[in-house]
Amino acid sequence: MAPTAAAAEAEKNQHAVVGLAARYASGHLSPLSIPRRSTGDDDVAIKILYCGICHSDLHSIKNEWNNTVYPIVPGHEISGVVTEVGKNVTKFKAGDKVGVGCMVNSCQSCESCNNGFENHCPGIILTYNSVDKDGTVTYGGYSSMVVVHERFVVRFPESMPLDRGAPLLCAGITVYSPMKYHGLNVPGKHVGVLGLGGLGHVAVKFAKAFGAKGTVRSSAPGKEEEALGRLGADAFVVSKNADEMRAATGTIDGIINTVSANIPIAPLLGLLKPNGKMILVGLPEKPMEIPPFALVATSKTLAGSCIGGMADTQEMIDLAAKHGVAADVEVVSADDVNAAMERLARADVRYRFVIDIGNTLKTTTV
Amino acid sequence: MAPTAAAAEAEKNQHAVVGLAARYASGHLSPLSIPRRSTGDDDVAIKILYCGICHSDLHSIKNEWNNTVYPIVPGHEISGVVTEVGKNVTKFKAGDKVGVGCMVNSCQSCESCNNGFENHCPGIILTYNSVDKDGTVTYGGYSSMVVVHERFVVRFPESMPLDRGAPLLCAGITVYSPMKYHGLNVPGKHVGVLGLGGLGHVAVKFAKAFGAKGTVRSSAPGKEEEALGRLGADAFVVSKNADEMRAATGTIDGIINTVSANIPIAPLLGLLKPNGKMILVGLPEKPMEIPPFALVATSKTLAGSCIGGMADTQEMIDLAAKHGVAADVEVVSADDVNAAMERLARADVRYRFVIDIGNTLKTTTV
Repeated sequence: MAPTAAAAEAEKNQHAVVGLAARYASGHLSPLSIPRRSTGDDDVAIKILYCGICHSDLHSIKNEWNNTVYPIVPGHEISGVVTEVGKNVTKFKAGDKVGVGCMVNSCQSCESCNNGFENHCPGIILTYNSVDKDGTVTYGGYSSMVVVHERFVVRFPESMPLDRGAPLLCAGITVYSPMKYHGLNVPGKHVGVLGLGGLGHVAVKFAKAFGAKGTVRSSAPGKEEEALGRLGADAFVVSKNADEMRAATGTIDGIINTVSANIPIAPLLGLLKPNGKMILVGLPEKPMEIPPFALVATSKTLAGSCIGGMADTQEMIDLAAKHGVAADVEVVSADDVNAAMERLARADVRYRFVIDIGNTLKTTTV
Repeated sequence: MAPTAAAAEAEKNQHAVVGLAARYASGHLSPLSIPRRSTGDDDVAIKILYCGICHSDLHSIKNEWNNTVYPIVPGHEISGVVTEVGKNVTKFKAGDKVGVGCMVNSCQSCESCNNGFENHCPGIILTYNSVDKDGTVTYGGYSSMVVVHERFVVRFPESMPLDRGAPLLCAGITVYSPMKYHGLNVPGKHVGVLGLGGLGHVAVKFAKAFGAKGTVRSSAPGKEEEALGRLGADAFVVSKNADEMRAATGTIDGIINTVSANIPIAPLLGLLKPNGKMILVGLPEKPMEIPPFALVATSKTLAGSCIGGMADTQEMIDLAAKHGVAADVEVVSADDVNAAMERLARADVRYRFVIDIGNTLKTTTV
């Protein structure tokens, strides 16, 4: 079928963009010319300056979830500057510092969307490896620019650095949202964080920002000094230390569990006070074994949580700016992205790689 | 060691009481003279008129939880009339209609007690088969009278019948408390009830009292007419009907799961909307298998809940009276209690047996 005149016009006006793409399950990333739609009436065009590297990116480029469409350009922790806005856009103008997280559109009319949970919309369009409304596959933030509906763009407060702020768009909202909805954003609460990685270290910072007491539980004793020092945690429990675990029994109001490995959950529920809550934000592969008594006896909760809605994301980054919360990052050049991926696979990063797109991504491909 | 004068005096003033006791794991109940302490300064003495038969009573008299101390007098759904109060008692006077539920004391000073969750106090003293502060074993409501600290006595509103109201002290608060704390007590919410027995039928009534839509899911198609008719449920889903289950997918805000058998939980979580909650109030014997994705993908909650605090119990019975909520009961005489236990073991009751203690329990033993 021949394209319509309008479609031909839109295609002509497409932005020419370079992305770092994986073509095969090896996951090797290299520059690729990719199309971006022309800036629509409700769209914001963004020159990307930084993009965080999330563990999901690594799973996706290697097709470990068996749903990757190649070529894939990952990246959903995007920060940059607005270059152009569509005629209906009211919230942003050229020059604004902004961010984009895990999603770039949704149906905008279902119960979830109407209640501010676009993240639960059955019609959610993810930032990469998702089918967009025009039938094209979405490409993520390891690229020079992106065009996004204004509803899915977040304003960066003036004091929020673009590099250390980028990871908040995924890691930040992923831990902030459950802390809000499970009532852990209250001064005096004792919040536990399981696992001290990209998500966990931000969870500790938000707990402190809320005025809570933060305890980190990790299997790595070597992280104690950093947890207590740089991150400001109040206590550190090594999960293999039986005495420490016993002493912590029944002391915690809520646990943000960032661990993606299959660890036994029941003993960890024992750390919670009555009415305590554990919220899973990682995705262990196998089912968990949960004895009903461990939940029922003192009315405990085991919940899951997946990113968060757009209004909450804006609220999160505003609160983060106010309290000086941002990710601890190691900035890498676009040329070093494959080396960074290898280090991420070994958990050799404290705590998030961020690609310096603006200064190092060449906008020509070979 | 010889008793002190005070102890001897207290012993002399003990109430002479008859209870229905099981002496052995056969669980056969027969009259037994039991001691009750004299009415202390903070105590309320209650002439028992009715006592509901909870499934826990059956487990306990047969030592199915391996913790029974014989002789055991069960019963924790007690209603009756105050006969005497201690000098510090301010909330009750002789002649008041009152109830007693699953607990008769707690430490009254820990974080749980101070927050109104006496049910989670590590020092909780259960109404029967528990060691009281004076070292005696507590005897429950299958008996002619009871002496209870006023904090653990609930006032019966004038319109609440003593027979149909008695089961609310356990079954009622057990479903009311999680509906309150998980935000299901809101008009317009869609509440699901799994299992239509002693707890489930009361849960449906509270859901309707809150202005929620109530859907019952049961494995027994024969209960449909009653659920929709007598109990006022809005919908009925037979769990073995795949079409009905599919149609109900993603439609329910919260499920009160009263089922004590080990049924697969993951498919039932599929009935919940995003952010939906399933609360377990039964105690299946074996661990549940929960795939993390079933909770994380759309931020669902699996929680447990165990009875409720005293202020909530008073609130529950006041609200029940206001909305005409009470248990559907079959009143039996004390002489028929063993036959009732046999029928309960076969689930042959709609929905709660209540013993007519006041009119049928002989106060002499053979």
